[in-house]
Amino acid sequence: MKLSLPPKTILLPSPVLIIGTYDPDGKPNMMNAAWGGIVSSKPPCISVSISEATLSFHNIQQTEAFTINIPSEKYLVEADFVGMVSGREYDKFKETGLTPEKSKLVNAPIVNEYPYSLECKLVRQVNLGSHTMFIGEIVGMVADSEILNAKQLPDIEKVRPMLWGSFGSQAYYNIGEKLGESFSVGNKLKQK
Amino acid sequence: MKLSLPPKTILLPSPVLIIGTYDPDGKPNMMNAAWGGIVSSKPPCISVSISEATLSFHNIQQTEAFTINIPSEKYLVEADFVGMVSGREYDKFKETGLTPEKSKLVNAPIVNEYPYSLECKLVRQVNLGSHTMFIGEIVGMVADSEILNAKQLPDIEKVRPMLWGSFGSQAYYNIGEKLGESFSVGNKLKQK
Repeated sequence: MKLSLPPKTILLPSPVLIIGTYDPDGKPNMMNAAWGGIVSSKPPCISVSISEATLSFHNIQQTEAFTINIPSEKYLVEADFVGMVSGREYDKFKETGLTPEKSKLVNAPIVNEYPYSLECKLVRQVNLGSHTMFIGEIVGMVADSEILNAKQLPDIEKVRPMLWGSFGSQAYYNIGEKLGESFSVGNKLKQK
Repeated sequence: MKLSLPPKTILLPSPVLIIGTYDPDGKPNMMNAAWGGIVSSKPPCISVSISEATLSFHNIQQTEAFTINIPSEKYLVEADFVGMVSGREYDKFKETGLTPEKSKLVNAPIVNEYPYSLECKLVRQVNLGSHTMFIGEIVGMVADSEILNAKQLPDIEKVRPMLWGSFGSQAYYNIGEKLGESFSVGNKLKQK
C-alpha cells in the first residue's frame, strides 16, 4: 500500500564524505558529511552542504578550498568519530591516528590512509537555510595506486567505500554484489 | 604508493536517481541521474544536476517540479534503460511497463512500482557549465508501507537500493552488510 508521508531528507544510499580543511592557523580538520554529490561534469564540480555551526564551514570560507576523502570500510570507527565531535574540541587527526598530507593543488589536507581524495577549489556558495552548499571545482585527485583500474580510475571493488543508510537505519553498510553493467543491461529493453 | 592524477568526477558510491517529470503536454518522462544528493535539512532540499540536452531539463524549467524515485535492485534493467534513451524518442513508462502516478503535491509523476519517491518543488537553479543544478524543496514523500520502519522511515534493508560504481567500474551494485551504527561506533575513539 502506498502512503503519503511528511517530507524527509532520505536518499538511499547516501555517501560517506570526509571533508578535509585547514583552520586559519593551518591546523587540519576533518568532518563527516552525507549531504553532497557530484554536480557538474565540465568543469568537474562536487558539492557538500555544511551547517554554519561547524568549524569546517568557517575553514572553507577562509581558505576557499577543501578535499573530499573517501574512506574504505575498514575506517568505519574513524569515519563515525569524525562526525560525532567538533574540531574545536578535538584534534581529530591525532585522535584517529590518521595523517594529514597537504594537497599540492589546494590549501587543504588529504587523509593519507584513505584510498582516494578529490582536491577542490571553492567556486560557489549557496545558502539554503540550515545548510550552505559549498561547490568546489575538482582540480585534482590523489589515489593509492592499488585501488586504480587499468585506466587509472578508482575501482569501487578495490576502494570498498562505505555508504550510509540515512535516518531509516542509522547505520553504515558496505557495497554488495555487482548487479550488471551500466549503459548496457538496459539494452534488453531497447532492443525489444 | 600515492599518485597525483587528473580531476575526475568519481564519487563512491554514487546514487541511482530516477527523475520523474511531465512535458508541456502532460506526458510523463523519467531519466536516470547520478549527479545529485541531499543539500539541506531545513528546509528539506535535494539537488539533481542535469544537462540542457535532456528533455527532463526543459520539463523541470516549465513545471518547476520533479520527483526523485529510488529504484530497488530488482529494477536494474529498467533503471539502466531509462538512462540510455531520450524521452523525445521513447515513451519510457510504456517501454519499461512502469506506471506513472501523479503526485498529489507537485506537478510531476511518481514511479508507482518503486519503493519510495520524494516530491520536489523547484526552488533554485544553478548553472555550472555542462550541468544545471535543480534544487528542489522536498514537500512530501510517497512510500510503500512494506519498506517503512516503525518510525515510518524508509529502511535501506527493505528498500534494497542500487548504487553506481561510477566511471571506474561502469556497473551497478547492491548494498552489502551492515558495518555498524552511526553516531555510535565512533564512541570507541571518543571514550579513549
